[in-house]
Amino acid sequence: MKGVFDRIPSAYEGAPVTDYGDKIIIPGFCDIHLHAGQLPNMGIGYDCELIDWIGKYAYQVEQSMNALGFAHRCYAKLISDLWLNGITRSVVLGTYYRQTNDLLFQMFMKSGLSAYIGKSVCDRSPTGVADETTENAKQDLLMLADTYKDQKGLVRHILSPTYVPGCTPEIMEFIGHLAQEYDLPVTSHLCENRTEVQEVHRLHPEAPDYASVYREYGLLGQKTTIMAHCIHTTGHEAELLRDCGVYVAHCPHSNLNLSSGVMPLRKYLNMGIRVGLGSDISAGHTLNMMSTMVAAIQGSKMRWMINPQEESVTTREALYLATKGGGSVFGKVGSFEEGYEFDALVIDDGNLYDFTDRTLWERVERFIFRGDDRNIVARYVSGSEVARPQL
Amino acid sequence: MKGVFDRIPSAYEGAPVTDYGDKIIIPGFCDIHLHAGQLPNMGIGYDCELIDWIGKYAYQVEQSMNALGFAHRCYAKLISDLWLNGITRSVVLGTYYRQTNDLLFQMFMKSGLSAYIGKSVCDRSPTGVADETTENAKQDLLMLADTYKDQKGLVRHILSPTYVPGCTPEIMEFIGHLAQEYDLPVTSHLCENRTEVQEVHRLHPEAPDYASVYREYGLLGQKTTIMAHCIHTTGHEAELLRDCGVYVAHCPHSNLNLSSGVMPLRKYLNMGIRVGLGSDISAGHTLNMMSTMVAAIQGSKMRWMINPQEESVTTREALYLATKGGGSVFGKVGSFEEGYEFDALVIDDGNLYDFTDRTLWERVERFIFRGDDRNIVARYVSGSEVARPQL
Repeated sequence: MKGVFDRIPSAYEGAPVTDYGDKIIIPGFCDIHLHAGQLPNMGIGYDCELIDWIGKYAYQVEQSMNALGFAHRCYAKLISDLWLNGITRSVVLGTYYRQTNDLLFQMFMKSGLSAYIGKSVCDRSPTGVADETTENAKQDLLMLADTYKDQKGLVRHILSPTYVPGCTPEIMEFIGHLAQEYDLPVTSHLCENRTEVQEVHRLHPEAPDYASVYREYGLLGQKTTIMAHCIHTTGHEAELLRDCGVYVAHCPHSNLNLSSGVMPLRKYLNMGIRVGLGSDISAGHTLNMMSTMVAAIQGSKMRWMINPQEESVTTREALYLATKGGGSVFGKVGSFEEGYEFDALVIDDGNLYDFTDRTLWERVERFIFRGDDRNIVARYVSGSEVARPQL
Repeated sequence: MKGVFDRIPSAYEGAPVTDYGDKIIIPGFCDIHLHAGQLPNMGIGYDCELIDWIGKYAYQVEQSMNALGFAHRCYAKLISDLWLNGITRSVVLGTYYRQTNDLLFQMFMKSGLSAYIGKSVCDRSPTGVADETTENAKQDLLMLADTYKDQKGLVRHILSPTYVPGCTPEIMEFIGHLAQEYDLPVTSHLCENRTEVQEVHRLHPEAPDYASVYREYGLLGQKTTIMAHCIHTTGHEAELLRDCGVYVAHCPHSNLNLSSGVMPLRKYLNMGIRVGLGSDISAGHTLNMMSTMVAAIQGSKMRWMINPQEESVTTREALYLATKGGGSVFGKVGSFEEGYEFDALVIDDGNLYDFTDRTLWERVERFIFRGDDRNIVARYVSGSEVARPQL
């Protein structure tokens, strides 16, 4: 980005121009938490809570992903849906399967969209059999780190231990070292569900809290870190998130669908904690980022009703979270300020007409509350227009 | 409706057949609370609370509705959008303007959709100038009652005092008598916002509570009654709603958008109170009834998180609320049981495929969480297919 100008500056005279007329141009959406391997479950099974839901729905479908043909079909649909919904950047968790993860990298690299992609790691299970051995997880992580170590473009590798109860201390330590050695970002889950938090206390009585376990193993802010959910954090954990510069992936639809809770969004923003939005497919049911923004606003209003000192977030703030908030994970992304990468969506709000003269902001607000993929007519990632991916 | 059969019974052999193949057929949606006159504000101004929002947004646009040309454009869009979203029945509040209300009746009668339509009545204002004189309100109500007294088909007249603070005792009494004389249903607002409830206490110190004021004037269950919101009810008020057989119009999006609160849905269902869903356009931002169902489920889960004894509603219950729950306002509507009117939607969920064999219920669930108007490919009202209204 050079800037936003009323007239083309003389330095750029003669440059090719695309005139989008009265359409609206906004930064691309950034979805900083989603599970590629769970795509088929979108919209299914939300009468359960988290742990039940994982057992009944999430686990089975992730197993099917071991078949490359099935994974290919799902990933093609996922990437096409991300494109459709104007999600130019995403943080994507893969599966436990080596080939399937490799496929996910290859497909994103063809797509023109940007993603940080991580292998799911789960080598312990408090309730049953772990998904993989520690040795297997180490080998796969190393292979991915080596294969994609020079990949510094739109698609990059991220380390993604599932969550503390699903990872042995040995693998967490290994991942912490890998992050340093290969200069890799890290993402995981934190304080999503009360039962999960209790489990962490049982497994790690030595740690003062859940976040401190990650910190201990080099997985909280030593490198760029994204933690999903962060609902049931203690005061100390919130301070850790702030002091370690962690990005919180706020996933309001998921948190409501699985009755996990409502994240203290205003508190985090007031503390200066970095926050972006996540669809959390498929505990979340939609890649429509406007719907996720609305859920974030509504959840925040609900918290205000219970605690009037916790002021609710505005529609403007929600738009910030969906763009620059999460975009900052990827560098200078999510804004039209000078020096930022040009990730943009062109919005045709023609069908949202209301027979009334509207300000630019009212049109944006109306698009957030009422728009869908039909209103997004062009997508740009890092300066280039991206056509619908053919995978 | 005669029934749902695996094979065509011999009594109906030779009857014309429409084969919808693998598509899903569900009862039509019933939206039992929306403001036609506020259509242009959908999706605008939700950084305000109720009273501010009315002053800044709702009031102005309702004034514009005095111009017939403007009202015609808005109502044509509203009816088209109701059709698009599969809302076969609705309870529609009009404006304070005689001609505009008459236009609304005429347009609905042409549309093939079913609606109960009411003139907004507001002859007192605690904060400013009332919208109309008591005399004017009486004349308009009488005119509508006379004009549409023989209209017993799909479009009918409903009496709709705005809310207690907006109506003088004189007009409430008048409306109560009119309901008896012309055998008319009644709809209004109850306990939406805490400030509103306080205002009712100030204006009616003689009444034990808000609901009792309506009851006193013949506006709570003496005839079929729909009360919107019912968030901040007392135990006595909830009992009144139950004992008087009142329908509660639950409007979850509106209640969240304007920070009004989250209605105790489970409590009402457990008590045996009748509940349906309302979009509450334009404090609600969408006529997508699936989105309203999801908001009802999510709000209910939120209440469960705070009070684990208040079990959250299931997706099945939400579908009931959107169909038979609200449909019962209109008689035998909202179900495929014998004797019911055939209001139906044909759902093509082809674009929601997930590479997995799904049960019928999982497909319905997925449609509720992920579908939109594109999935609705045919609409039937009382036995007839309804084409897109040309108004």
